[in-house]
Amino acid sequence: MQEIVRGLKLKNKTIGFVPTMGALHEGHLSLIRKARKENDFVVLSIFVNPIQFGPTEDFSRYPRPMKQDIHLCRKHNVDFLFYPGAKLMYPLGFKTYVVVEQLSDVLCGTARCGHFRGVATVVAKLFNILQPDRAYFGRKDAQQAIIIQKMVEDLNMPIRIRVMPIVRHRNGLALSSRNIYLNEKERQEALCLPQALKFAKDLIKSGERSSQCIIKKIGEFIGSKKTARIEYISIVDLKNLKPLEKIADKCLIALAVRIGKTRLIDNIVVKVTKSQSHQ
Amino acid sequence: MQEIVRGLKLKNKTIGFVPTMGALHEGHLSLIRKARKENDFVVLSIFVNPIQFGPTEDFSRYPRPMKQDIHLCRKHNVDFLFYPGAKLMYPLGFKTYVVVEQLSDVLCGTARCGHFRGVATVVAKLFNILQPDRAYFGRKDAQQAIIIQKMVEDLNMPIRIRVMPIVRHRNGLALSSRNIYLNEKERQEALCLPQALKFAKDLIKSGERSSQCIIKKIGEFIGSKKTARIEYISIVDLKNLKPLEKIADKCLIALAVRIGKTRLIDNIVVKVTKSQSHQ
Repeated sequence: MQEIVRGLKLKNKTIGFVPTMGALHEGHLSLIRKARKENDFVVLSIFVNPIQFGPTEDFSRYPRPMKQDIHLCRKHNVDFLFYPGAKLMYPLGFKTYVVVEQLSDVLCGTARCGHFRGVATVVAKLFNILQPDRAYFGRKDAQQAIIIQKMVEDLNMPIRIRVMPIVRHRNGLALSSRNIYLNEKERQEALCLPQALKFAKDLIKSGERSSQCIIKKIGEFIGSKKTARIEYISIVDLKNLKPLEKIADKCLIALAVRIGKTRLIDNIVVKVTKSQSHQ
Repeated sequence: MQEIVRGLKLKNKTIGFVPTMGALHEGHLSLIRKARKENDFVVLSIFVNPIQFGPTEDFSRYPRPMKQDIHLCRKHNVDFLFYPGAKLMYPLGFKTYVVVEQLSDVLCGTARCGHFRGVATVVAKLFNILQPDRAYFGRKDAQQAIIIQKMVEDLNMPIRIRVMPIVRHRNGLALSSRNIYLNEKERQEALCLPQALKFAKDLIKSGERSSQCIIKKIGEFIGSKKTARIEYISIVDLKNLKPLEKIADKCLIALAVRIGKTRLIDNIVVKVTKSQSHQ
């Protein structure tokens, strides 16, 4: 793969890279389409990265529909599919990690200790192997995208990070490879995530500026669902992920909720213009 | 600098990189000469990296003879001298670090907490900026070279690391930018470092295989010097830096000694062939 990339670079070809864990859905396809538009070549990686899963998490049962993924890559004109094995990526004696401090310890980082260290490390490795000009991430994993942007900036990687909007089902549910874990009833209850975010947005539109108050109200809403267990609801600064007391400028409303045994996340970015914030 | 590098890469030119903290001496020049031989272009960086110095260390008094360094770069046909400022390398809000676990916590890492995290991070940054084909390090900082090799391997950086032999004064003292701190008497006493390593080598040659015994003997030798204070004397595996009980294969004998207020390091690699180890 590194030789192929070297050849493309010498011909001054641009490379767009879509890192994934496979189980491709319309969210991934939106990244492929954007990469296709902006680059000469598109590389997609499929690697269920063991070091970003905790010991009690779903690493072994994470879906791996390889045939279907290959079909989708072909259909959407992905030029190269890179799917390394775990032993190739983490040979015996592996000991180097990339850590983005502070940003990795909040939101999903609180419950998923070491998760973002695993994400930053594997993405750094993939970037070094594939030498992309642009890399594409979904806003669904907002914290991940922000951490990767910070890593690229801090480590002077010559790569542009593109963050694309969340793709949702018609009913509002954000697409995720983990939605497959939900049964019919849970799928219905899972709608409380996008509904809660819509509720928060409406509260802000109607003038509410207290984060505490918004979090309380949407917490009560989600809490009313039988199978839902809230992990966190946070309103934070879009850049440094620090909690905001008052809604202002751009803020990220992010939440993680367990629906039965399935952990789901969702988020929304809310922009408040100056005139609005003086309401 | 990144634009220049991009231009060179497009022309299929190879780049040899010599990272330094300046105060160039014959050791650095040996790296430049090797880089000159093996590459189309040579880039040398001068950056006294604040994040690899502890709060009580010599960051502020570290020698910075910029004019002399520029003169030496010109004289030795360095093509590009890269000397970024600290604010450019670590802007406000910097929070990404590269950590090579285990290897960073032994030898010099014991007393210099966080030192190798600082080294790995700045070298990763410089590699990303300069995209070298080959990078040159001195064996004088043996642990540093081993950590950088491990980082490059683990993170799949497409860079070859070349480690060049220690350059010594005629009297045996390993060249170091920090030798300038020594007064005349200390310069004499500092010879106990290379002498101790020579002593260790001779002990091994004469059949001694117990690390403990060798460490004890050369410790007593250094201890007999008035201004010398031993920080560590270690005999370790050349790859994983783990202590060796018995001398076998390739081992690294490394030591750090304070001569007055100046901390000096030195090391030697000893190879024991099978027939020798059966003596």
